Amino acid sequence: MSRQPSDMLPAESPRGPINSRIPDGDNRPRLVCDECGFIHYENPKIVVGAVCLHEDKLLLCRRAIHPRRGYWTLPAGYLELNESTEAGAAREAREEALAEIAIDRLLAVYSIPRISQVQLIYRARLARPDFGVGEESLEVALFGWDDIPWDDIAFPSVHWALAHYRETAHLADFPPFGNPPGATGNY
Amino acid sequence: MSRQPSDMLPAESPRGPINSRIPDGDNRPRLVCDECGFIHYENPKIVVGAVCLHEDKLLLCRRAIHPRRGYWTLPAGYLELNESTEAGAAREAREEALAEIAIDRLLAVYSIPRISQVQLIYRARLARPDFGVGEESLEVALFGWDDIPWDDIAFPSVHWALAHYRETAHLADFPPFGNPPGATGNY
Repeated sequence: MSRQPSDMLPAESPRGPINSRIPDGDNRPRLVCDECGFIHYENPKIVVGAVCLHEDKLLLCRRAIHPRRGYWTLPAGYLELNESTEAGAAREAREEALAEIAIDRLLAVYSIPRISQVQLIYRARLARPDFGVGEESLEVALFGWDDIPWDDIAFPSVHWALAHYRETAHLADFPPFGNPPGATGNY
Repeated sequence: MSRQPSDMLPAESPRGPINSRIPDGDNRPRLVCDECGFIHYENPKIVVGAVCLHEDKLLLCRRAIHPRRGYWTLPAGYLELNESTEAGAAREAREEALAEIAIDRLLAVYSIPRISQVQLIYRARLARPDFGVGEESLEVALFGWDDIPWDDIAFPSVHWALAHYRETAHLADFPPFGNPPGATGNY
């Protein structure tokens, strides 16, 4: 997930002469650099990730970075420029779990408005049986459903995605899930 | 869609002392302001929109803004901060077509890597029969399928969404579409 952890406030809070004002022709305040006139549009970010299956086990990564260092998560992170969502999910699996995955279909679209994130989570399989520990992971492992470290899951949306995966495990085709009813992703 | 048209390069090209370099602890170049150290992470943007049905007709807006001024599009635009994708699609219909919509389900997720966009297009109905011409529209109208101004559609993804809508018109439930095979959204 490059250096931007997948579920924290954006790292772009201004630390110079950047002020909030409504640019000409706009209808809401934007961050504008007083020095250079640069308009920094802040938009929600896209997180892409995958629930990856291998022989009835699911691939999880233990985070080596904050927030939630030491807790388990799916391979997931911010979509990069000029990248399709499927390519981004595959890249994250490669970076965090040294795994090549074959994406099956879109499992879920979660909105987490508090942190301005939209998460696109795919259902996938390992394309090869081997994987490893990427730079941002402390540990990467395959878990049977009952062995998943449920008490040490990093984020609410990881719980959602695992539960939603479970509901579709025997379905070839299904519409993607959204947030569980009433769930906002806040801790 | 605020002032950012839905299918153009982001308006944030640097015009001051902003240079591209790899920040400490990162793995790819980012735009950094030499004056203030501000790191401008550039991430793909999320466009939300809807194919809106009313009595077997579809709602289209003729664009009052560049690019593709004068051409017809779906109500759609950039997701704003702290907004869910469904709320954003409803807001865009309100802003561009003065329409209240009831979102049914996710119709499609399109990736347009060249312009770093991910589009989430919903299937919806007008919640009330009235609509009007929003600030960024020249004209807003309901069209039967055969009357859609096919030669004057603003963007490839509008064609895709209309065709995908057509395929699901009699389905209650379906997985969302992606890009048509081989289609990138380039003109």
